Amino acid sequence: MAGMEKEELFRSGGRAASQARALRLTPGFVATAEGSVLIEVGHTRVLCNATVENGVPGWMRNSGRGWVTAEYGMLPRATLTRTARESERGKIGGRTHEIQRLIGRSLRSVVDMRLLGERTIILDCDVLQADGGTRTAAITGACTALALALGKLVQAGSLKESPLKQMVAATSVGIVDGRVLLDLAYEEDSRAEVDMNVVMTADGGLVETQATAERGTYTRAQLNEMLDVAAVGIEELLKAQRECLALA
Amino acid sequence: MAGMEKEELFRSGGRAASQARALRLTPGFVATAEGSVLIEVGHTRVLCNATVENGVPGWMRNSGRGWVTAEYGMLPRATLTRTARESERGKIGGRTHEIQRLIGRSLRSVVDMRLLGERTIILDCDVLQADGGTRTAAITGACTALALALGKLVQAGSLKESPLKQMVAATSVGIVDGRVLLDLAYEEDSRAEVDMNVVMTADGGLVETQATAERGTYTRAQLNEMLDVAAVGIEELLKAQRECLALA
Amino acid sequence: MAGMEKEELFRSGGRAASQARALRLTPGFVATAEGSVLIEVGHTRVLCNATVENGVPGWMRNSGRGWVTAEYGMLPRATLTRTARESERGKIGGRTHEIQRLIGRSLRSVVDMRLLGERTIILDCDVLQADGGTRTAAITGACTALALALGKLVQAGSLKESPLKQMVAATSVGIVDGRVLLDLAYEEDSRAEVDMNVVMTADGGLVETQATAERGTYTRAQLNEMLDVAAVGIEELLKAQRECLALA
Amino acid sequence: MAGMEKEELFRSGGRAASQARALRLTPGFVATAEGSVLIEVGHTRVLCNATVENGVPGWMRNSGRGWVTAEYGMLPRATLTRTARESERGKIGGRTHEIQRLIGRSLRSVVDMRLLGERTIILDCDVLQADGGTRTAAITGACTALALALGKLVQAGSLKESPLKQMVAATSVGIVDGRVLLDLAYEEDSRAEVDMNVVMTADGGLVETQATAERGTYTRAQLNEMLDVAAVGIEELLKAQRECLALA
Amino acid sequence: MAGMEKEELFRSGGRAASQARALRLTPGFVATAEGSVLIEVGHTRVLCNATVENGVPGWMRNSGRGWVTAEYGMLPRATLTRTARESERGKIGGRTHEIQRLIGRSLRSVVDMRLLGERTIILDCDVLQADGGTRTAAITGACTALALALGKLVQAGSLKESPLKQMVAATSVGIVDGRVLLDLAYEEDSRAEVDMNVVMTADGGLVETQATAERGTYTRAQLNEMLDVAAVGIEELLKAQRECLALA
Amino acid sequence: MAGMEKEELFRSGGRAASQARALRLTPGFVATAEGSVLIEVGHTRVLCNATVENGVPGWMRNSGRGWVTAEYGMLPRATLTRTARESERGKIGGRTHEIQRLIGRSLRSVVDMRLLGERTIILDCDVLQADGGTRTAAITGACTALALALGKLVQAGSLKESPLKQMVAATSVGIVDGRVLLDLAYEEDSRAEVDMNVVMTADGGLVETQATAERGTYTRAQLNEMLDVAAVGIEELLKAQRECLALA
Repeated sequence: MAGMEKEELFRSGGRAASQARALRLTPGFVATAEGSVLIEVGHTRVLCNATVENGVPGWMRNSGRGWVTAEYGMLPRATLTRTARESERGKIGGRTHEIQRLIGRSLRSVVDMRLLGERTIILDCDVLQADGGTRTAAITGACTALALALGKLVQAGSLKESPLKQMVAATSVGIVDGRVLLDLAYEEDSRAEVDMNVVMTADGGLVETQATAERGTYTRAQLNEMLDVAAVGIEELLKAQRECLALA
Repeated sequence: MAGMEKEELFRSGGRAASQARALRLTPGFVATAEGSVLIEVGHTRVLCNATVENGVPGWMRNSGRGWVTAEYGMLPRATLTRTARESERGKIGGRTHEIQRLIGRSLRSVVDMRLLGERTIILDCDVLQADGGTRTAAITGACTALALALGKLVQAGSLKESPLKQMVAATSVGIVDGRVLLDLAYEEDSRAEVDMNVVMTADGGLVETQATAERGTYTRAQLNEMLDVAAVGIEELLKAQRECLALA
Repeated sequence: MAGMEKEELFRSGGRAASQARALRLTPGFVATAEGSVLIEVGHTRVLCNATVENGVPGWMRNSGRGWVTAEYGMLPRATLTRTARESERGKIGGRTHEIQRLIGRSLRSVVDMRLLGERTIILDCDVLQADGGTRTAAITGACTALALALGKLVQAGSLKESPLKQMVAATSVGIVDGRVLLDLAYEEDSRAEVDMNVVMTADGGLVETQATAERGTYTRAQLNEMLDVAAVGIEELLKAQRECLALA
Repeated sequence: MAGMEKEELFRSGGRAASQARALRLTPGFVATAEGSVLIEVGHTRVLCNATVENGVPGWMRNSGRGWVTAEYGMLPRATLTRTARESERGKIGGRTHEIQRLIGRSLRSVVDMRLLGERTIILDCDVLQADGGTRTAAITGACTALALALGKLVQAGSLKESPLKQMVAATSVGIVDGRVLLDLAYEEDSRAEVDMNVVMTADGGLVETQATAERGTYTRAQLNEMLDVAAVGIEELLKAQRECLALA
Repeated sequence: MAGMEKEELFRSGGRAASQARALRLTPGFVATAEGSVLIEVGHTRVLCNATVENGVPGWMRNSGRGWVTAEYGMLPRATLTRTARESERGKIGGRTHEIQRLIGRSLRSVVDMRLLGERTIILDCDVLQADGGTRTAAITGACTALALALGKLVQAGSLKESPLKQMVAATSVGIVDGRVLLDLAYEEDSRAEVDMNVVMTADGGLVETQATAERGTYTRAQLNEMLDVAAVGIEELLKAQRECLALA
Repeated sequence: MAGMEKEELFRSGGRAASQARALRLTPGFVATAEGSVLIEVGHTRVLCNATVENGVPGWMRNSGRGWVTAEYGMLPRATLTRTARESERGKIGGRTHEIQRLIGRSLRSVVDMRLLGERTIILDCDVLQADGGTRTAAITGACTALALALGKLVQAGSLKESPLKQMVAATSVGIVDGRVLLDLAYEEDSRAEVDMNVVMTADGGLVETQATAERGTYTRAQLNEMLDVAAVGIEELLKAQRECLALA
């Protein structure tokens, strides 16, 4: 355990292996959206805005059920090297598709679509500054924006009760130089052996676990260790969400 | 002049006809870009990031001259009603094209391309919240971000002197209910008879004047009155730019 | 004034500074369109065809009002060097967008949309040969084609009176080698310090003024001089439109 | 044969079954292209412009051989009902692809690619007004424009001899109400049982024959009769090409 | 005739000039489609699947008539050198457009659209392995798949009688080294002087004949010889179709 | 355990919960590709073709390292209801992007890029018939096709030793009606509470684990049970791969 402390020094800012980065949730970052949250996880900053629209996509019409979906974008200079706009390239890239599908699935897991009724909620997650973990930050922030938007609908009497069954939050974990680390920053992520995203609900249920070996393979024991560490990190995220919603 | 005061009451927030909205320029809003400024003009907020890249577009190669260009985007929930992403639609719309061409031309007018050398500077102007005047705010903010980025190049010794000959700033003016108003908010803009954008340099030269009749036509006298009012507004913008650069 | 004459010699074809190029409007250039005009301004030739369609875009439905819009294209060999087709490139360029928006706005300024009723008029402006000033030629020609098409609707009894309140015409002016010149040909335009487009109605009202500094800046005095010269040129264009319509 | 004359009266303008429409070839229709011809076949008008570019597509580089290709377009109001621009729709349609491939193949059959050397010739065929037979008119006109452009290269000394081995021309034939008709106008084409395009060279060789049954099928005898009639029509087209080139 | 036998040896596998390649039609290749046939013509393998959908395209609605259309694709490694996916390139190429239009026209010629009623049948023809003649194999296979799908509709009582008036089949012929050859393999096709596709119905009527000179031109006599040979080949294809349908 | 047998009856074909579907790997399904395998997992059939190209993408040039990538497609009638072609829609969908990224990552985990050298291997995975588990079948089949292609390079002397470090295979597991099932067919997948894909190497290392809750959430215990069952299934897949490669 003593040797452990020495190792900790390798993380930027003296962060411990299972210590998440500084976290801030700012509700109402823009006034134009039904629900708006700026989430900051270390240097990663994602603006999450919720839009409530009447009606659902064609294939769901007359089902009496609602729909929740997400779109993800990155400003060209969210990254140290400029990334070309997807609007300029004329198409959405594979990474963007993958991320926005993950966000959408994660949020749908905590919404009661019958209570929502034939409404569509779109969560726009736009990365203003990227330093790793943008997709998990987007899930955590988007769920908070969703809670704000649904809260307004209840307050306005449009909904009797909130269709949000519980909160959901997400973090990344990974194996870097053989050690399991919580909440990877970009520099860590880019040299990780294994990269994992974990999405959990407030009651501790798993919604999504994705562990990818970037170099070599990983064992069941490592997978379990990553899940242990992720659970710790998500606990903190859920707490921050509660505080943010209490304030808003 | 007495009657004037009564009329003033029509503008939101008790603003006078030739009074601009509250202005704030925040340098270094993101840490990832070579030059970054968040400009806030009333509720309008535009993030302007400057990128410096080596090399120039193909048609300029071996000319010894640089190039300055701009891209403009709007987050889906910058507006009260959600706007679909241009990346989703697979193409840049006409309005976006028109605006980013205007920003690019305005900035090129104050840069000495020979001093810049074969470098390309891209100004990304992304609207986080829109309440009218996003294109003129983008010009004013982008010029500040450009000054910051060029300042770094000079400081780093990559450039002997800054290729920025002088600052440029822009504002909107318009005729609403027959009165010439400075710096239109969205609500005013949407019912304006005439809508005008004016781009001026620090030495008072005109770079771009675009006056469009939205209803009916306008006279030479009205055009002159709009230019007078715009000059007053731009004076303040140039002052704010100087203060921002002094701080940065 | 004596020195002035010497300077005139610099314009191609011995044209005076405030002298427009030879102008010709040919009505009925194609028989397939509701209104068709070929406009020739010097070597610039633009075919303007008006289409009348029942119905309006979705956002205007049930408003009882009509809509006027324009599309602009350039044949690949309208220019000395071949320009790739926008259909081949799979998207409309920024310049095209900017121009067709300008044409549309200019024409809408002279049409009473209530009198038009729920009809859409599309003005297709296709450049057969380009020698500068294609966008202003397109406006002048398109308004004539529009008048022809609306005339037919009145004649056919579909409309009681023409929704065209008055004619609109446009020209370019510019500053070349310090001198204000009317109706720039391509060679002049490409080396102009300032390039301006002016759109005016028959009663002398201004619809659109766009003055762009291509090199350096311009003064209020120069702006006024350009507007003076433009007014002279537009007078002639309006006269030619009247003659063309009298013949048709 | 007597009954035949009565039947002839059914064709618009009293045209005989094997009589082509009025034909006009105007060389130099635009001054901007290396070779330019406006071809008019009845009401069908196609502007054919030839562009000579140095170099060949990547897959032909260093072969010492040239390339000839064609692009085909239709102005929106070439037709009685407006056709949306392919640039607006963001892609080239199947019909356009099919036609421009046919034009390209037809012209390549009469060009000696070794004599042309590593140059690319692009034939832009743009339909100003459409009344049937635009693709065959395009071939006939494009070959004339090609001859003009190559003639200029020879005259300028860039080529020792013309790579154009002989002229090529094309016409349509069809079976309408059981009768074989030459050079179908749109109204005839739209109710034809069989529609055929024939491309022939000056020495009587066949380059392309495409006969399509639109309703039912056709026999070998009918195919032969269509080829007989087409040969007569193409003879006239080749004569008109010779006269046009003699004048130019 | 003796010399003829020697020449035959030049065809791969000792095939005679008017001898088609080995042919196999496998009904029900996939179980998911209403009609499915794998056609193998030598090494060429095309999977033809028929889909029956209720309703017709907008322009046919309420006509009481049906529609038959085709789509053609090639797997990237159907060819010896990998071909990029059209989905990756973001657009359908000209060759694909041309082929699927040909298949669609050929099949429509044998379907009674009134008997079909307001249904759309889509024939997907996907090339698994390509060795020349994919478009004609697609027509022959697609007509068989269409017959299977329509047979099911009759069997299910959805249609009283089959709208398929008769079968249609297609083959290629060409002139290689001056000799007319039936059913060209890729190697032969790539050096052919003339390439021809012939589409015929069971009663011997011609639906489509397309003969293209790839080098030089061809004569009427050669065209007739190619049609003679094609008729022999198509006879065999029609027989194989009948056997396949008898089994299915 | 007795109750277990009763439950088994719920799976189609009397399949046990941890029993995979019938499996077949056909090497050399097409002759045109460097490595070709048709994999059949129950009714799911995926054609996997490997292409070896010299050179690597731009960002890897001169690194001395190779690249392995995958593309995934689905024939329109692989599914019971026809799916529109992505080439027709003009873009790759999110699901396709997600799948082909997963296949590519899985294969890269077992290839030594230095031994491969500056070559690119593309694995085209095209679904001929879909009944669930197409992405995991694609991974298993593609690795086999990759082994075949690399084997040929070694045999031809182009590579001294194979860069394939070990085989990789994949399967799906899920929770349906509360029970953990191996290798879900479409009908099971569509009503699963949890859907998981597991990618493992021959030495038992994990490459990718993705578990998604489709309804509710899952526990750590359930995740472990799914991993246990997946390991059993993958063992069989690896055995089938070995047998296929021994034969080829």
